[in-house]
Amino acid sequence: MNESAPRTGQDAEPIPVPKSLGEIGLRHFAPYLLNRIMGRYNQSLQESLGEAGQSVAKMRTLAVLSVTDGLMTNELAVYAVIEQSTLSRTLDALESEKLIRRQAGATDSRVRHIHITDKGRALFNEAWPLFARTYHTMFAGIPAEEHRRFVDTLQRILRNIRKHDF
Amino acid sequence: MNESAPRTGQDAEPIPVPKSLGEIGLRHFAPYLLNRIMGRYNQSLQESLGEAGQSVAKMRTLAVLSVTDGLMTNELAVYAVIEQSTLSRTLDALESEKLIRRQAGATDSRVRHIHITDKGRALFNEAWPLFARTYHTMFAGIPAEEHRRFVDTLQRILRNIRKHDF
Repeated sequence: MNESAPRTGQDAEPIPVPKSLGEIGLRHFAPYLLNRIMGRYNQSLQESLGEAGQSVAKMRTLAVLSVTDGLMTNELAVYAVIEQSTLSRTLDALESEKLIRRQAGATDSRVRHIHITDKGRALFNEAWPLFARTYHTMFAGIPAEEHRRFVDTLQRILRNIRKHDF
Repeated sequence: MNESAPRTGQDAEPIPVPKSLGEIGLRHFAPYLLNRIMGRYNQSLQESLGEAGQSVAKMRTLAVLSVTDGLMTNELAVYAVIEQSTLSRTLDALESEKLIRRQAGATDSRVRHIHITDKGRALFNEAWPLFARTYHTMFAGIPAEEHRRFVDTLQRILRNIRKHDF
């Protein structure tokens, strides 16, 4: 999970920090665009998952576990971007539906690792087309090379602002 | 505010839609990266604005009005990415602090336009360095050209997924 340190890019012209929002304009202010996009993305997922009787928090938790099983609660909260209190309720619900199970750590029994069950994996696989459809809509008409560069920049931004080393 | 229709990019190779999350991996799945980034961005703003005794919803509302004054509530909800019920409470608070004022529409008196007051503008200008600092941290070491391409792609994605024509 470790990645290389952020490149410093001292060889290239850095972006100027705007003196006011008026100077840059909403439409060129990346955090504004990011908020608009994620607001719509999450609402659209909520609608389609809601129709299937599921919640975004539950599905996002299963999504993360489907590719990185055995995480601890604090790691899961970071990966799934869910507040600890919401995650705690979400895990209770997932456990009661037998979609995940918690297992004590081998060396530290106070620690709990969260594992996705076969039933949980099957449920997430069923829901995946909804995620894939939204993903497809987001990048409609965007060439593969532009998408690749976009993901590169997202990874650099995440390295710049994350608090955790993962 | 109108923009040209999304380019279809039929001349370039489109991105393949992954058959599973495992196939693409969390770290290359743009919605995951976007969620992580915006989760951290919003939390970081909340912390720094909270220390200054302000809320993200209030400041985001003033931010939008500072560049696009006179919006109606439904437009403001879209631009500021705030749910109508939260926005309604936020506007009440901003009005009671004389940071905004509401004005009946010239042609339709049932419609209310929201205007930022001089006091509201002064407060947002005071808070702007906090937004600018977070923005600066996000793009640290990212060259201007990469930033420009990134913003371009964000604009295309927003055109792809937005429900409103603005």
